[in-house]
Amino acid sequence: MRIALGIEYDGQAFAGWQWQKGRPTVQAAVEAALSRVAAEPIRVTCAGRTDAGVHALEQVVHFDTNARRKPYSWLMGTNTALPEEVRVLWVREISEDFHARYSAIARFYRYVILNRPMKSALLRRQVTWHYYPLDERAMQKAAEHLIGEHDFSSFRAQDCQSKSPMRRMHFIHVHREGDRVIVDLCANAFLHHMVRNIVGVLMEIGSGKQHPDWAREVLAARDRRCGGVTAPADGLYLGGVFYPAHFDLPRHPIFDHLPADARRYVPSETE
Amino acid sequence: MRIALGIEYDGQAFAGWQWQKGRPTVQAAVEAALSRVAAEPIRVTCAGRTDAGVHALEQVVHFDTNARRKPYSWLMGTNTALPEEVRVLWVREISEDFHARYSAIARFYRYVILNRPMKSALLRRQVTWHYYPLDERAMQKAAEHLIGEHDFSSFRAQDCQSKSPMRRMHFIHVHREGDRVIVDLCANAFLHHMVRNIVGVLMEIGSGKQHPDWAREVLAARDRRCGGVTAPADGLYLGGVFYPAHFDLPRHPIFDHLPADARRYVPSETE
Repeated sequence: MRIALGIEYDGQAFAGWQWQKGRPTVQAAVEAALSRVAAEPIRVTCAGRTDAGVHALEQVVHFDTNARRKPYSWLMGTNTALPEEVRVLWVREISEDFHARYSAIARFYRYVILNRPMKSALLRRQVTWHYYPLDERAMQKAAEHLIGEHDFSSFRAQDCQSKSPMRRMHFIHVHREGDRVIVDLCANAFLHHMVRNIVGVLMEIGSGKQHPDWAREVLAARDRRCGGVTAPADGLYLGGVFYPAHFDLPRHPIFDHLPADARRYVPSETE
Repeated sequence: MRIALGIEYDGQAFAGWQWQKGRPTVQAAVEAALSRVAAEPIRVTCAGRTDAGVHALEQVVHFDTNARRKPYSWLMGTNTALPEEVRVLWVREISEDFHARYSAIARFYRYVILNRPMKSALLRRQVTWHYYPLDERAMQKAAEHLIGEHDFSSFRAQDCQSKSPMRRMHFIHVHREGDRVIVDLCANAFLHHMVRNIVGVLMEIGSGKQHPDWAREVLAARDRRCGGVTAPADGLYLGGVFYPAHFDLPRHPIFDHLPADARRYVPSETE
C-alpha cells in the first residue's frame, strides 16, 4: 500500500531534509516515527528536498508499507512519535501511480524578509532580517522578467544535480505586510538554491543597488557568476506542492492566499 | 534623564515580565542589559506586566539614569547585551512627566488561535491551538457586548490588584486568516487575566457551546465564577501601548493593521 503525507516543519531544528549520518534531519525524524507506527522500517520519498534551516508549511512525501493502519492511526501515531518541530498535517492512502516527486506539477515557495532596523525577538530564525528599506514595487517589477519558461543557470547552485536548467516560473508575487516583505514563487520545479538566488537578486534591486532590469540581464547571462548573493535559509518556506486533481490531495490553506491574478498560472491537468 | 524604550519579546523564554528571585524574567534581562550600558544599576517601569509565556510585539518601559548616552548607543548597546528572545525596537529621551504605565491612554492586545486539527511545528508556543472549528462571526457578535465602559469583574483574576473593576473597551475585532483566528482588543487598561478570560468566553461561543448573548450574561453577572476558562498564555501578545501624541513616541507597525472602523475608537488627547 502507498501512503501520502503532508508535513510541516521548523527547519532551524534540522540539518535539512535528507538523511545524513549522525546529524538530525527531517527525513530521519519522519522515518523513525513512521517505522514505529508501522512496526517495520519505512523509507519515504519527498516532493522537494530542503536545505538546512529551510522550513516547510507543507512538504509532501509518500511511502510504501505492508502495515495496515487507518489514516487517522497513521496521523495520530506518527505525530505522537515525532519531535514537536515536525507535524504531519494529513495522511491519505493513494494509488501506486502517485509519486511525491514525479507526480508534482508545481511547487510553491514563500520567502519572508523582516525589513526594519531591529532583528525580531519572536521570529528569530523564521525570517531573513534586512536592515535597509526595500522597495517591494521595484522587486515585483524585476521579478516579472523571470516569469515563463527560461534557462535559470544564473540562479542555480554549482552543485545542482538537475539535468536541465530549464524551468517554468508560473508567478512571483512580492508584497509588503507592515515591516515584512513577502516573496511568493510558484514554478513547475526549482533548481538547487534557485529561490534563494532569485531572492538575493531581488533584494539587491529592492535596496536600490541595482535597477529592476538587472534581473533580466542576470537571467540572460545564464552564468551563476553574474548573479547576486544567495539569500539566507532562515526566511525560506516550502509552501506547498500541486498535484493533478485526480489524486484528490488536500490543499494547504496558504493556497487560499494566492493573489487572484496568480491563480490563473496554476497549471491544470489539461495543460 | 528619563528614557523610554519599546521592547519586543518571546514570552516562552521567561517566567513573565516581573522580577522573580532565581527565575528568568524579561524585566531582569532588560535591567541587566541596560545596567551594563549605563555602567550603573537601572530599574525600569513597564506599561503592563505580562504573565509567564505571554509575548510582546511592543511593550513600553521607562527608566531614569545619570548616564549620558546617545539614543543609538542605548539601542545598539542594549541589544548586544540582551538574549536574542528580547529586542529593543526604539529608544527616546523623554520628559520627566512621562510614565510608561500612568501616561498610557490605551493598550492593544492580540490573541492568536491556530484553529485546525493538527498542532503547528512552526509556531509551537506562539499560538493557542484549538482543534474544533471556531465560528469567528459568532465570536465577533459576542464581543460586541463588551464594547464600552463596564464592570469587568467576571473577567478578572482572583488575585487582581486593581482598585476598580471598571474598564473602557475601545474595540474587539475577531477575524480569520486561513487557519488562524485572531482577536484584537483595545481598552484603556486591562485587569489581570482579562484578555485571556474574554478569549476563554469567546472560544466557548465560537465552538458553539454557548450562544453569543452569553457574553452579555457573563458581563452582567460581575462574578468570575460565571465566566469561562482562562485561555492559555501561548497565543497572547501585548501588541502596543498608546500615549498622548505630545510625547511623540513611535507607533508599532501593527497599528497600521487596525481595521478602519476601529481607528475611531483610538482615544484622542482631547477626549
